[in-house]
Amino acid sequence: MSYPANVKMVEVGPRDGLQNEADIVPTEIKAELIDRLADCGLPVVEAGAFVSPRWVPQMADSAEVLAAIRPKEGVNYPVLVPNVKGLERALEMKVGEIAVFGAASESFTQKNINCSIAESLERFAPVMEQARGQGLRVRGYVSCVLGCPYEGDIAVSAVAEVAEALYKGGCYEISLGDTIGVGTAAKARAMVEAVAARIPVSDLALHFHDTYGQALANILSCLELGVATVDSSLAGLGGCPYAEGASGNVASEDVLYMLEGLGVETGVDLDRLIATAWWISERLGRKPASKVALARGAK
Amino acid sequence: MSYPANVKMVEVGPRDGLQNEADIVPTEIKAELIDRLADCGLPVVEAGAFVSPRWVPQMADSAEVLAAIRPKEGVNYPVLVPNVKGLERALEMKVGEIAVFGAASESFTQKNINCSIAESLERFAPVMEQARGQGLRVRGYVSCVLGCPYEGDIAVSAVAEVAEALYKGGCYEISLGDTIGVGTAAKARAMVEAVAARIPVSDLALHFHDTYGQALANILSCLELGVATVDSSLAGLGGCPYAEGASGNVASEDVLYMLEGLGVETGVDLDRLIATAWWISERLGRKPASKVALARGAK
Repeated sequence: MSYPANVKMVEVGPRDGLQNEADIVPTEIKAELIDRLADCGLPVVEAGAFVSPRWVPQMADSAEVLAAIRPKEGVNYPVLVPNVKGLERALEMKVGEIAVFGAASESFTQKNINCSIAESLERFAPVMEQARGQGLRVRGYVSCVLGCPYEGDIAVSAVAEVAEALYKGGCYEISLGDTIGVGTAAKARAMVEAVAARIPVSDLALHFHDTYGQALANILSCLELGVATVDSSLAGLGGCPYAEGASGNVASEDVLYMLEGLGVETGVDLDRLIATAWWISERLGRKPASKVALARGAK
Repeated sequence: MSYPANVKMVEVGPRDGLQNEADIVPTEIKAELIDRLADCGLPVVEAGAFVSPRWVPQMADSAEVLAAIRPKEGVNYPVLVPNVKGLERALEMKVGEIAVFGAASESFTQKNINCSIAESLERFAPVMEQARGQGLRVRGYVSCVLGCPYEGDIAVSAVAEVAEALYKGGCYEISLGDTIGVGTAAKARAMVEAVAARIPVSDLALHFHDTYGQALANILSCLELGVATVDSSLAGLGGCPYAEGASGNVASEDVLYMLEGLGVETGVDLDRLIATAWWISERLGRKPASKVALARGAK
């Protein structure tokens, strides 16, 4: 069994994680979290989103967060951008990378952004084009790749089509999101194989949620296919805080612990990551939703 | 990637799980739990232990539990037995199967049962011999197969030696226990390969704890080697109830969810298993320590 020698860990806790917090996290805590994550050795730290504060109030201060961080050489701080208006704000803040957000499910796209998949891709086209014209890198998310809360199963061909459209539109990397965490290993592998038939596997990322406890097994099975980029969230940030135990993004510490055991290089410091998981969790008034952080304990 | 067509799920919750509960669980609850687990379709339900009640007070009523259950045709109800005295009690209760408990770590064996590995194997010899002479099946546990709380790393050769000694001594199945849940996928696979060089892989079982969140990934990687027996614990019973979040045995529901996703047959009913996880957890005054049970919720 062979695995990539190196894996790029993309930290999504400050955006995909914190956006689910009900209580607004102070700007200075968000900025300090991002700086601490970069200091752990993470090469990519998703820093915020230029979306409507009515939709995602927790991200209303993303410009202030970006202004407050201490940018570290060699670290990317992408920002989620849904439309041209968001892109303009990203350009004002001189971000180097944006992310656009598609889905492989028609029902999810309708309920989430009130249009069809095809229409959503049309909306992203000018965003991607203008971003690239301004020298920005664009990352593409595809959600619901292993299941949809409304439709259930999603055909791997639907995932591959959306992924390819975003890739051809100019995304340098496609992040495949198991948004509701229902996928299992064989299906994850089949999905990645279908996408990798159209896009180089080196340009794919795994973005798996751990709702059903399957994320690490699914990541393991996809690493075997050569995928070498994994999204994760410090302390498992991104679960639903109202439903005790219902988890969201796979925890960065748990992913890193597995990767270290496989002999995969990441450049990320596990002890420091665990300490950071306890740091942010204390500020949020709870324990980390990460087995590794809990097993190691607060230092 | 190929997996076994069928996997035998060995339920250890009523013994390995409940023995960690501080408050004594009433005999009738234990018996009802065992009956409910058998009704879920589990082919093996570990029912108790004939050990000193001073060491494991929770198992003091194992004879009463065995007398109270409603034995189901085709289901095994093994009982842990550390010595000839325990075997005599097992014979009185007419159990069909016992389990003996060894370890691959010298330090763990010394601290746990105050003798060397070699001495522990000598102690088990008459137990195994007499048990088989009476027509009982004997299962062998090896603990600390992926790490020891005192020694750290454990050589795969040490695991293979103890496993082979128990197998040659008459155990029909060897259950390989990651007692402290520190193992990762590549190491789990290397360990199983080392043992499978001496014992048919069809006679091996995986007994992994989920302390570091790695259990499902490790099981997945060992299923790929052909192991077709997996120990697990309903609702993740067996964590340390004092350390919130510190988990023990991998949860049966999480294992079954993965196996169903892989198309592996088990004969176990997932919905019924989840309902049983909520049932016992309510009796213990907490939520299940199983992501699948939490995600699906109590019905």
